[in-house]
Amino acid sequence: MHQSKKLTPLSSLGEFKLIEHLTGNFPIRHVTTIKGIGDDAAILDAGDKYIVVTTDLLVEGIHFNLVYTPLKHLGYKAIIANLSDVYAMNAIPQQVTVSIAVSAKLYVEHLEEIYAGIKLACEKYNVDLVGGDTTSSMTGLTISVTAIGWVNKNKVVLRNQAHENDLICVSGDLGAAYMGLQLLERERRLFENEGIKQPDFGSYSYVLERQLKPEARKDIIEILEKAQIIPTAMIDISDGLSSELLHICKQSQKGCLVYQQKVPIAAETEKCANEFNIHPVTAALNGGEDYELLFTVPLSQYEIVAAIPQISIIGYITESNKGCRLVLDSGEEVDIVAQGWNAMSNETH
Amino acid sequence: MHQSKKLTPLSSLGEFKLIEHLTGNFPIRHVTTIKGIGDDAAILDAGDKYIVVTTDLLVEGIHFNLVYTPLKHLGYKAIIANLSDVYAMNAIPQQVTVSIAVSAKLYVEHLEEIYAGIKLACEKYNVDLVGGDTTSSMTGLTISVTAIGWVNKNKVVLRNQAHENDLICVSGDLGAAYMGLQLLERERRLFENEGIKQPDFGSYSYVLERQLKPEARKDIIEILEKAQIIPTAMIDISDGLSSELLHICKQSQKGCLVYQQKVPIAAETEKCANEFNIHPVTAALNGGEDYELLFTVPLSQYEIVAAIPQISIIGYITESNKGCRLVLDSGEEVDIVAQGWNAMSNETH
Repeated sequence: MHQSKKLTPLSSLGEFKLIEHLTGNFPIRHVTTIKGIGDDAAILDAGDKYIVVTTDLLVEGIHFNLVYTPLKHLGYKAIIANLSDVYAMNAIPQQVTVSIAVSAKLYVEHLEEIYAGIKLACEKYNVDLVGGDTTSSMTGLTISVTAIGWVNKNKVVLRNQAHENDLICVSGDLGAAYMGLQLLERERRLFENEGIKQPDFGSYSYVLERQLKPEARKDIIEILEKAQIIPTAMIDISDGLSSELLHICKQSQKGCLVYQQKVPIAAETEKCANEFNIHPVTAALNGGEDYELLFTVPLSQYEIVAAIPQISIIGYITESNKGCRLVLDSGEEVDIVAQGWNAMSNETH
Repeated sequence: MHQSKKLTPLSSLGEFKLIEHLTGNFPIRHVTTIKGIGDDAAILDAGDKYIVVTTDLLVEGIHFNLVYTPLKHLGYKAIIANLSDVYAMNAIPQQVTVSIAVSAKLYVEHLEEIYAGIKLACEKYNVDLVGGDTTSSMTGLTISVTAIGWVNKNKVVLRNQAHENDLICVSGDLGAAYMGLQLLERERRLFENEGIKQPDFGSYSYVLERQLKPEARKDIIEILEKAQIIPTAMIDISDGLSSELLHICKQSQKGCLVYQQKVPIAAETEKCANEFNIHPVTAALNGGEDYELLFTVPLSQYEIVAAIPQISIIGYITESNKGCRLVLDSGEEVDIVAQGWNAMSNETH
């Protein structure tokens, strides 16, 4: 275990560099493996179609706090987070597996609630639960979900095919899930430190719902299909807009120009951010768990995309030497920097 | 969370009943889902072939103890356990995903060792690592693996098609992994309680290797293919022979008669069991993690199977009303009872 050498803390690399470091030297051996690590999902060749496979691990104390997370919502969200990755490949999820490690503090009735949430998500998104594993845990609750989606071969969308002048589009609005988390954390601290038992969530029902019971953008995939638009690149926004923009630009070897004033933010998110002295755009750029879709389309499709109310055009793709830039409302231009939530850092929520 | 109601402990149901209880009411919606929960792996229809998907969760303190588990071996074993489930469907694994939650006590160098073991297994079994997730953990180490295998549609093998008079076959030998665990646990206790620093493993290298670095029976699938044998039912032995026999019999709605003297046990396993005052057959019947294959073939194939040195014929399938019975060396017949290791019980190893 190299105990005599100086050891490298995990946080020194960050999640993405760590994965690259650990898995970069794994070769691909099979012709059925079209795409391995490095996108929202792996792509496998299943004859007529591609299958996409994605997996996520949700860990108590890191990804959720049972103090304010209803178990049914947790089960629901665990499925949503994975379906979102499938949609980001322009694929339709059909199957999920769910593995759960449960600590001794949980009872059968608690698991029933988690599974009620899983069932609700499976119903709403039309997916089959086809497998899993259930085990005890000496410590906290862990949920591992794998989702499998299907897509016609000519319709699969990667992160690495954005072209210069492509429009950068985003679904829905951003930053709400992050503000919901701030709100829940504030009330938890008040409860724990000052014994205030009745949480005060004001009129922030939207941001709370976005944090506790997010949805995946199945509708956007259907709208794009209907409009006969195949994005050139796509990714789901789970770590914040900045982080996802950089993934698309890095993998496509391009730059981008994004306008602050175009970034969609709900009125309630803005109000809540102001109350917390957080700039609303900061919440949108760096807050995670929005599960919206970020994608690029050719400039020629401007009129079609601009007419879709669920989609905002926030900027465009540039040459790689232009860098990844944000035009502030003041007119000033700044570099886009990934400060998205890092699952390998020591901060937890 | 029903805090006012009386709550049901997880251990009151056991792993298999719990999964049935939680997932029994999930419908199957897609024609691509050929088989959901209830076998070694799910089966999906990928046009010309079937894809099988299986997933397992390994939790520190439940499935492994880092005191005596080298991290490289742990990575290797996590892959093997899943490949074994793929082979049990008569399928060939081609892809795996690996998710890991790591506690703060681990460093990059430790993860490198886990991934070195994963890489070794991927090389030896010719599979591609195609995805995963890496996150921190507030508590212990958790590894979640999903394996994907491919099989011609007419060759997939379930648990539920064993017929009366079919021969019951098992690969390799049984009980060794369990005895390896007893040995490691004994030395751990001596180390922790009596400060004895140098473990005494005698000459038990085989049972230790079976526990720490098991293999999956890829060779058996190849041998059966060559011999043009398609088993009528198959399962991998991860929870002990008794438990797996009961799965095949229950799902095939049959009984079985198994002969104690035919159960293959290595000389070293027997010697080690005797030292621990455990009946060797008890280790074979109820000890887990052997990762051998248990399968049934038509009586007409007796001569072919009997000629394969890696396979033992241990009994045959009977009518369901005959029950599941073991013929002891004394000639006495007893019921086969599942006392396999239960991941939902409070005992840990």
